[in-house]
Amino acid sequence: MKLESLAESLRDYLGATRKHSIKNIVNMFDEKGTNPSFGEDAAIIEAGEEALLLAADGIWDRLMRADPEWSGYCAILVNVHDIAAMGGRALGMVDIFSSSSPELSEKVLKGMKAGVEKLGVPIVGGHIHPDTPYTAVDVAILGRVKKDSIIYSSTAKEGDDIVLGIDLDGRVHPSCDMNWDSTFLKEAAIVRHQMESMVELGERHLLTAGKDVSNPGILGTLGMILEVSGAGAEVELDSIPKPASLDWDRWLKMYPGMGFIVTCRPENTARVIEVFNNHKLNASRIGKIVPGSHLDIVRGGERATVFDFTKHNITGLRPVKGCNQ
Amino acid sequence: MKLESLAESLRDYLGATRKHSIKNIVNMFDEKGTNPSFGEDAAIIEAGEEALLLAADGIWDRLMRADPEWSGYCAILVNVHDIAAMGGRALGMVDIFSSSSPELSEKVLKGMKAGVEKLGVPIVGGHIHPDTPYTAVDVAILGRVKKDSIIYSSTAKEGDDIVLGIDLDGRVHPSCDMNWDSTFLKEAAIVRHQMESMVELGERHLLTAGKDVSNPGILGTLGMILEVSGAGAEVELDSIPKPASLDWDRWLKMYPGMGFIVTCRPENTARVIEVFNNHKLNASRIGKIVPGSHLDIVRGGERATVFDFTKHNITGLRPVKGCNQ
Repeated sequence: MKLESLAESLRDYLGATRKHSIKNIVNMFDEKGTNPSFGEDAAIIEAGEEALLLAADGIWDRLMRADPEWSGYCAILVNVHDIAAMGGRALGMVDIFSSSSPELSEKVLKGMKAGVEKLGVPIVGGHIHPDTPYTAVDVAILGRVKKDSIIYSSTAKEGDDIVLGIDLDGRVHPSCDMNWDSTFLKEAAIVRHQMESMVELGERHLLTAGKDVSNPGILGTLGMILEVSGAGAEVELDSIPKPASLDWDRWLKMYPGMGFIVTCRPENTARVIEVFNNHKLNASRIGKIVPGSHLDIVRGGERATVFDFTKHNITGLRPVKGCNQ
Repeated sequence: MKLESLAESLRDYLGATRKHSIKNIVNMFDEKGTNPSFGEDAAIIEAGEEALLLAADGIWDRLMRADPEWSGYCAILVNVHDIAAMGGRALGMVDIFSSSSPELSEKVLKGMKAGVEKLGVPIVGGHIHPDTPYTAVDVAILGRVKKDSIIYSSTAKEGDDIVLGIDLDGRVHPSCDMNWDSTFLKEAAIVRHQMESMVELGERHLLTAGKDVSNPGILGTLGMILEVSGAGAEVELDSIPKPASLDWDRWLKMYPGMGFIVTCRPENTARVIEVFNNHKLNASRIGKIVPGSHLDIVRGGERATVFDFTKHNITGLRPVKGCNQ
């Protein structure tokens, strides 16, 4: 695939365009644009020496229809990631579970239980609608982080290196071919240790920004960082860690089971990669933060723009002056 | 209506029977029955001098289909109540919003915004599914409470008085005739002051147990306290505060906009009523906690059993030895 065609395919990928409506909601609740948590994976609520992190994530109904058990598992996985993305540790979750049948309930709950056991974060309460026409599971999670160790999305700066930490030891999930599953079959201790990589990176102050790779994939997630940081990026395609069995178009659209995209000052890049490696994650420097508003991919002498944020939106969120900076 | 017919009608009311499936979920995640937060309105997560409260509540899809704006408003109202029920103050909320159309989204969000403005608790983040076949809003809320001031559901004791604090100054909601709305048209300062009644009752240690009146109505909510406290109750029907325009069967099935059912030692009953009154709530002693497993209503010489928890379930939860006691 030509680089330009790849860029276009990625830009149009539904996983990214679904995020557009975030902006409208944010605007509705925060007309002055003063909430520093918008655009972040978790909201920062509270003070003392530690900050509390509150996040909520649900599972796309397409996934629920494809595989209820895997959906229940992912509902846990994505929430714990939202806390890790901020450099935090999860304390507990609550779920709101709507179910159209006992059979579906059993499958979803089985998956959630597997997720709880894998990640070691308890479900401490919740709410159930046992008789809805649809089946959906929404989870909210509470975490905490040292105040000086919070990892934000909106703080990437020109000149930073971009590092991807990701687990390539996995499989295409049997019932969802856009999910790269690296956790379900893996020992819980390893998965939890991978999640801790972000706590160490935060506490050692090695990053300028970071985010877990979510549905918009590796470059879509990087794009979300760029939108709220007000910056551009140049990514060397061939430096992105990739399972050998997958082509670029597919890999870059996938939701990986365990991936973090972070930025750091170049003098810290080697340390950041080392932390990811010590936590059993593949890691590479994949590019750099540049001035402007383009997310470009480059390969040899070829260059293509995946997003130009003067024209394209992922979340549509933009930097707020005086916040997080 | 004869007292026995009223008891039967209340027992069969869907708002109570929908809670049955809670037990199955609790059992799945907590096989040893050791989590002290189950059966409570919010989970107690964390220590220091204050405890954190995490709760999640969603809106019944029937209500969503009847009135999306009112559903959005209620999603906020019920969550803030879950924190107040434990004697806590809300810090912030996250929402997961699934929407089938922009028109519906706008209505739901308008309602949520009205709720946020009324109650003064911010939405600090969330997740959106803009393209689901259904519209649903789930909210999770974080609150805090002094550790020695937590109000539990499972700690009602034989000999306690039962007090209802409730706002009769309201209306049957125009689009949902099972909702008694006392908040939507009321000044925000009054609504917030009403919510604070539980904080004062908790901090003054005037209660033995308490809960906000939710979908199962006044007696269904009392029943939930009895189930997890392992006690019975005798309620004098005519002592329950009631809007003059409504009959008993209807009133006792309604979700009130602002109601708390609490238990206390008889020597504190007058103080509890006074606190509710000072917070602009109607309040009366409506009965007492008795040994056994029956929730009985009495009027003159007549008596009828609404629930016998050896045979009937609301949540199906039962006391766990060594927890909260």
